[in-house]
Amino acid sequence: MSSSGLVKIEGEFPLALGGSLPEIEIRYEEWGDLTAPADRTVVIMPALSASCHVRSNDDDPSPGWWEEMVGPGLGVDTDRWRVVAASILGAPFGSTSPMTSNPNTGRPWGRDFPQITPADQARCHALLLDHLGLDRVHAVVGASLGGMQALQFAAQFPDRIGRLVSISATGKTTPATVALRRVGRLAIMNDPDYADGHYEPGKLPERGLAVARELGMICYRSRDEFNQRFDWDPDPEGPYTAGSLTYEVERYLNHHGTRFANVFDANCYLLLSRCMDLMDLGAGFRSYAEGVLRITCPCFIVGVDRDILIPPSEQQHLAHLLESHGRDVSFEILPSLFGHDAFLKEYDWFGTRIRTWLGDDVD
Amino acid sequence: MSSSGLVKIEGEFPLALGGSLPEIEIRYEEWGDLTAPADRTVVIMPALSASCHVRSNDDDPSPGWWEEMVGPGLGVDTDRWRVVAASILGAPFGSTSPMTSNPNTGRPWGRDFPQITPADQARCHALLLDHLGLDRVHAVVGASLGGMQALQFAAQFPDRIGRLVSISATGKTTPATVALRRVGRLAIMNDPDYADGHYEPGKLPERGLAVARELGMICYRSRDEFNQRFDWDPDPEGPYTAGSLTYEVERYLNHHGTRFANVFDANCYLLLSRCMDLMDLGAGFRSYAEGVLRITCPCFIVGVDRDILIPPSEQQHLAHLLESHGRDVSFEILPSLFGHDAFLKEYDWFGTRIRTWLGDDVD
Repeated sequence: MSSSGLVKIEGEFPLALGGSLPEIEIRYEEWGDLTAPADRTVVIMPALSASCHVRSNDDDPSPGWWEEMVGPGLGVDTDRWRVVAASILGAPFGSTSPMTSNPNTGRPWGRDFPQITPADQARCHALLLDHLGLDRVHAVVGASLGGMQALQFAAQFPDRIGRLVSISATGKTTPATVALRRVGRLAIMNDPDYADGHYEPGKLPERGLAVARELGMICYRSRDEFNQRFDWDPDPEGPYTAGSLTYEVERYLNHHGTRFANVFDANCYLLLSRCMDLMDLGAGFRSYAEGVLRITCPCFIVGVDRDILIPPSEQQHLAHLLESHGRDVSFEILPSLFGHDAFLKEYDWFGTRIRTWLGDDVD
Repeated sequence: MSSSGLVKIEGEFPLALGGSLPEIEIRYEEWGDLTAPADRTVVIMPALSASCHVRSNDDDPSPGWWEEMVGPGLGVDTDRWRVVAASILGAPFGSTSPMTSNPNTGRPWGRDFPQITPADQARCHALLLDHLGLDRVHAVVGASLGGMQALQFAAQFPDRIGRLVSISATGKTTPATVALRRVGRLAIMNDPDYADGHYEPGKLPERGLAVARELGMICYRSRDEFNQRFDWDPDPEGPYTAGSLTYEVERYLNHHGTRFANVFDANCYLLLSRCMDLMDLGAGFRSYAEGVLRITCPCFIVGVDRDILIPPSEQQHLAHLLESHGRDVSFEILPSLFGHDAFLKEYDWFGTRIRTWLGDDVD
């Protein structure tokens, strides 16, 4: 079975940095036995460029972004678990975002959307679970920005989560990662078609977004993958100019940059880019440790050895902190050519481990 | 003693990728005993953003870019060696480049400057040495693009070099590094003020250049340095928007990006960026090894552990290849927070080793 829906949650939604949204809408999908109770439910939290379409369903038979991980007999087994996924706050996939209408003005939010953080996104997931009548779910699973939301959910709602899987995420963004994201944002904002956020429908800042995505692709993968995968020699035909697609890797990046720029809204991208910078489990607490130790459930924390965006030292630090305070933590570093994106490629590795970690029984 | 000059070398200068320049001019500086013979001469080859002003001199008392490495009693001891440095072909520092006049048209080359490679730049250095009457120099020293030129010089002119010091350079650029440079180039070419290379003097593509430089700064340093050096928390005053300078690291990058964009010519940057992509000691040979093994002199090859632009594995591969064919190679990996830029920061380490490597006696 599967289902999809859009739920409107009336009333003010307060934000971590102050201010509020007048209301929020959350787009979601479900798989498995949709009547199963909370303790048989696994929640998937998507990353930056992913929607709630985690896998194919009756309404949308196209493959989802985690088709190989979520389904009958897979890592997150829909024969065993009810699976729920929401499109995240701020992303251009149907939940409230810069693309949706500001109820106070009747026009799309655009660049006036208030800055959110992963803590806000986690509270959206909690509201959806309220709506679905799911109080304490069996597990929450996420990677990258999805992993940050999962950590925030576990920290803010320790009584509502049985187990946590957080992959390639950080408990607090480091300056080195802010630096990389800043460059992508700058490329977008420098695009004259960005028009200070007031771009017109037919004139989108596609070139800036493409640059941001190209840099993103570099950070999501690894040097080793690029050096193994692509031809080292320039195209023998040339041209060899600065702007030409002289190397295979340039054609690859150009392809992905252009494709992304055609489907992702620039204001959403900028909002979510900064949102990830602002990830901090310690925000509002006397110390990072105090904020982290709100997490009480058993945690499976994974880093990838070649992740250059959120290196495994960050997951290791988080795991050690939790472990040293008596939390039940399983920590692994996956060796993978695919770096930060390994969760979208290494299905055998993740499938086996997530399946085991979720267990057979409800908590 | 010190001296500086501009030498015009008449006659066609053929280029590695085909075509030629009608003539070239080379700007250079010298220090030490300017009457010393070739075998008492050390040649310094500059990197992308460095001129021939390696250290202060009578004509220009401002500090040079390697002031702490070259001078009396320093790593390259001007009491012991005659030191020569040329501004490199294609850079905006006085030698022939997109900023200088095309003798065929009387106007600056601009974007019509033909694409060069480090092999061409090395042949410029050789022409300068011809002009100065220096046949076989004691040593050639370079880092980053300077190290690539040094390798190319040693490969093309094995009889003209006694010893080689190549730091943080590669024998052949990898796709992973092409990818990073491409993103910087794209940011410049997307700037509407770039005007397809025909930008006007008062309207330079400064924003695009700043993005390229910001990405450059990230690649020149290391995650560890950024994470140790900069505040991890956002400015408590905010603002927290995508475009604001919310984190200290953003203010740092913005400062360096803006400063660079005010002094570096965009067409020169694009030319030199692609020039480094095209670094390949094997170009025109049956194999990379065959091209590399033209180098016969003793080599001191250095990589830096945290170099994310040209990682130490690339220097190691080069050193092993030379060593396995009987060349006299000293290879070291320097552990340094400063990554690719270590040659501009770790003066004690490099000074001691380069001084030792250059020896006391002429070859």
